Amino acid sequence: MIDLYTAATPNGHKISIALEEMGLEYSVHHLDLMQADQKQPEFLAINPNGRIPAIIDRDNNDFAVFESGAILIYLAEKSGKLLPAHPDKRSQTLQWLMFQMSAVGPMMGQANVFHRYLPEKIPTAIERYQNESRRLFEIMNHQLSDNRYLSGDDYTIADIATWPWVRIFEWSGVDISGLRHLERWLNEIAKRPAVQIGIVTPPSSDLSDEELADKIRKMVSK
Amino acid sequence: MIDLYTAATPNGHKISIALEEMGLEYSVHHLDLMQADQKQPEFLAINPNGRIPAIIDRDNNDFAVFESGAILIYLAEKSGKLLPAHPDKRSQTLQWLMFQMSAVGPMMGQANVFHRYLPEKIPTAIERYQNESRRLFEIMNHQLSDNRYLSGDDYTIADIATWPWVRIFEWSGVDISGLRHLERWLNEIAKRPAVQIGIVTPPSSDLSDEELADKIRKMVSK
Repeated sequence: MIDLYTAATPNGHKISIALEEMGLEYSVHHLDLMQADQKQPEFLAINPNGRIPAIIDRDNNDFAVFESGAILIYLAEKSGKLLPAHPDKRSQTLQWLMFQMSAVGPMMGQANVFHRYLPEKIPTAIERYQNESRRLFEIMNHQLSDNRYLSGDDYTIADIATWPWVRIFEWSGVDISGLRHLERWLNEIAKRPAVQIGIVTPPSSDLSDEELADKIRKMVSK
Repeated sequence: MIDLYTAATPNGHKISIALEEMGLEYSVHHLDLMQADQKQPEFLAINPNGRIPAIIDRDNNDFAVFESGAILIYLAEKSGKLLPAHPDKRSQTLQWLMFQMSAVGPMMGQANVFHRYLPEKIPTAIERYQNESRRLFEIMNHQLSDNRYLSGDDYTIADIATWPWVRIFEWSGVDISGLRHLERWLNEIAKRPAVQIGIVTPPSSDLSDEELADKIRKMVSK
């Protein structure tokens, strides 16, 4: 049994989707980020960075794993699924996983902060992160023009890491017009039964987008 | 033989240090980032993201690897060094490697952009990234208070990924005062012979810090 500590964010959804895809048994612990559950000592003992997601593997001496990219690798190796065994294909999957971890996530995350959350509107910063996200989207679109999935023919943890971020392009204010290969990939993955469960685990807040943005804005400006 | 495409930046130094530590034979191709060598078609064929570092493994059918974190894993698995074999210790190394890839690198990188390169000075953005970097430094300091290295007793690719970033704290405008465990770790790794070679591979520019900042500033504002 895997204990999953999470919230309804792109990084959280990576892991609920992966657990569903892999058919691993898990129990969801929904952290209230607005109440700073992730900064409480019990959670910091699992992830010293105070960020969701994190897991504890109850079948492996309560082994704790933090950082969504490291959790995906851990679960793929535990289940033997979604990370190819052949060393070259495995490396290609890890390359696109790292591309998500080091670029797509951080840049869209900063776009969200400056575009949505900070009360102060700073055009230079908003444009910087939206443009950089669009540049990354174009690279993925090119890659997907002759590959079904990000790292080749197989659906892998690289797709699982990236899809929950790319799908919120509107929220981040990133334009995807003209990127038809990326759209094809977005739509294809959205149809997977495991994704449809993972993406509502845990359930989103009942708040409207605007109410939610307002709440996050107040939290950020504290 | 490994062909290494690199420049004198923290991400580039990760790989020259790793190759030195692992004792792998390599040949350095120094890209001139100011001349946008990394955006030329020949290089984009190796890394579609147009960023250094990247490698080609001539002993493995010219297999190309991009993203510094994925290169470190590839080289560790090729050499059998600096990534523990035990699954739990291996995962701990990958967790701290991901912490560098997703947090330390992107946040210090943004601190550099707003603090050093952009002509427009935006206090909100400068403080945001310097404060976030300091927060990450404090997490590492705590981890290093009872671990010799980031992921435990062993020096690994997690340390190699993180050290070239933390060492430029002054350039990023991040204060490390009071973080004595982090300083101990910085100084200890700096003494390693492989690090001393890796950190000057390729050689830095002959420009002074101020001349270099000015050149980058002009490039960024283009």
